[in-house]
Amino acid sequence: MKCLVTGAAGFIGSSLVDRLLADGHAVVGFDNFSTGQERFLAQAQQHPGFQLVRADLLDEAAVESAAKGCEMVFHLAANADVRFGLAHPRRDLEQNTIATFNVLEAARKAGIKRIAFSSTGSVYGEAKQIPTPEDGHFPLQTSLYGASKLAGEGLISAYCEGFGMQGLIFRFVSILGERYTHGHVFDFYRQLSTDPSALKVLGNGKQRKSYLYIQDCIDAIFTAMQRAPERGAHVYNLGVDAYVEVNDSIAVICKTLGVQPQLSYTGGERGWVGDNPFIFLDTAKIRALGWSPKCDIAQGVEKTVRYLQANEWVFDARH
Amino acid sequence: MKCLVTGAAGFIGSSLVDRLLADGHAVVGFDNFSTGQERFLAQAQQHPGFQLVRADLLDEAAVESAAKGCEMVFHLAANADVRFGLAHPRRDLEQNTIATFNVLEAARKAGIKRIAFSSTGSVYGEAKQIPTPEDGHFPLQTSLYGASKLAGEGLISAYCEGFGMQGLIFRFVSILGERYTHGHVFDFYRQLSTDPSALKVLGNGKQRKSYLYIQDCIDAIFTAMQRAPERGAHVYNLGVDAYVEVNDSIAVICKTLGVQPQLSYTGGERGWVGDNPFIFLDTAKIRALGWSPKCDIAQGVEKTVRYLQANEWVFDARH
Repeated sequence: MKCLVTGAAGFIGSSLVDRLLADGHAVVGFDNFSTGQERFLAQAQQHPGFQLVRADLLDEAAVESAAKGCEMVFHLAANADVRFGLAHPRRDLEQNTIATFNVLEAARKAGIKRIAFSSTGSVYGEAKQIPTPEDGHFPLQTSLYGASKLAGEGLISAYCEGFGMQGLIFRFVSILGERYTHGHVFDFYRQLSTDPSALKVLGNGKQRKSYLYIQDCIDAIFTAMQRAPERGAHVYNLGVDAYVEVNDSIAVICKTLGVQPQLSYTGGERGWVGDNPFIFLDTAKIRALGWSPKCDIAQGVEKTVRYLQANEWVFDARH
Repeated sequence: MKCLVTGAAGFIGSSLVDRLLADGHAVVGFDNFSTGQERFLAQAQQHPGFQLVRADLLDEAAVESAAKGCEMVFHLAANADVRFGLAHPRRDLEQNTIATFNVLEAARKAGIKRIAFSSTGSVYGEAKQIPTPEDGHFPLQTSLYGASKLAGEGLISAYCEGFGMQGLIFRFVSILGERYTHGHVFDFYRQLSTDPSALKVLGNGKQRKSYLYIQDCIDAIFTAMQRAPERGAHVYNLGVDAYVEVNDSIAVICKTLGVQPQLSYTGGERGWVGDNPFIFLDTAKIRALGWSPKCDIAQGVEKTVRYLQANEWVFDARH
């Protein structure tokens, strides 16, 4: 089938594009390159089934034009800068909520009946139940990022109900692996490549995090695409059944790099205001469709470090 | 204190304005009069503490200007046309979600630390637990209206977390009483005033609904304003501990009017796509603050019919 992938030049987007093309699908990749990387699409650009649209999702006409003739939308474009949301509150609203609305309207006008959406475990706020299931407690939002993604989920659900669409909503933990360009491992690698003798850690290092390897993430998206019920909105947590402390992932990074830095901590239970101390998701629902991750957290962190070592250009690229 | 009330010329907004003024507060009323009524503000306009701003919440400069010098915002403005959301999907996004964002930004810039927000029991979608508590299951959205209101809630929560504000989020059942201008009772009254011998009912008439009387609703808002914890977002269901079927409220209407129409039903369990078959809220949380409603559903329906009889001009007004 012909698919529209928004955020096609991003970490997850470009990985999905490559897999869709390998699987025989035609892909219209849509990206404004605000954080996307040309080089992530180098392989796709060689493929005759790939077409790139360089535009912003706030440009309604561009989205509508790109959606024409497609059968499914993978809406992955987002402002993923969770940490600095408070510095520019309108960005999450525009890039996550309004952009999602524009994608839905374009899909509806193009007669597209299927949409997959990258949401986040951040929508659980301060989860009362851990591991957190999809239909657990009704949470309060603690970040503009989570709020804007939940708003996107709500729009998709309402469109599914109102217009007979299928919506696949994925609530991700942090994703790691090839093309990873922001988050703990990225920041730590960058610090250590400048000065292998010292590492500054936000918070107390005991923040627990669960990471999923990018190719396992793409597998899960394909699994849901093939096996989820046809009509309506379906929410799937994506993650692994384990977690690490930030300190554990620092240990893997240091071991992989062969360095032994002096660690210093800014202190406190969270890295920044609105940071979730712990996102750990119950993934029974996506596992029930037959998916399971092939890579554990330590392997994911190590693969990420190896990728960054081989691709130091990503540190000079604009994020 | 000086308060900003958005949607000041609406059903709930104008009732709140009158109570705030009676309670000694100064009020800046903000309304674009898309559905608000001049006549609802006739009493307020006589009051020296009232100031009216005729503008749209999408006009950021107008909202910022209106917020200056206020200590609290009551954000009641909304597109409340739940039923026809699918006919104009962008309206809920703009009037409910983006407008709420603009109000929050204006409040933040004006140094306002308190905001009250009219949300809706529709955010519970197809509730799994009835009566539905505030922190029950994480719902899927079934209407664009519910989705847009939940998006507003999320923005408020995130602002409270990020900027140290207090947010009072009220999830209403349907509200009835003086100045009521849309919904079942309004539609039925209008039909019966044209032809007292016949009444057409959407659905099978067995849809269960819970209604709260407007003055009880305003009491609840005042109670939370005085007794809710200072910091953070606090969600309160507002409703009565009882429900009726649409047929029951038809019986009260007919008795009050002294008519005996032939009833015809369009059939089906819901009035329209996205209509909730049953919204019945657990109100233990607001009751724990000392509030309880003074008026039951039948009394609320009867008061509404009496109001409509005395104010038939509302049927000629633009809604």
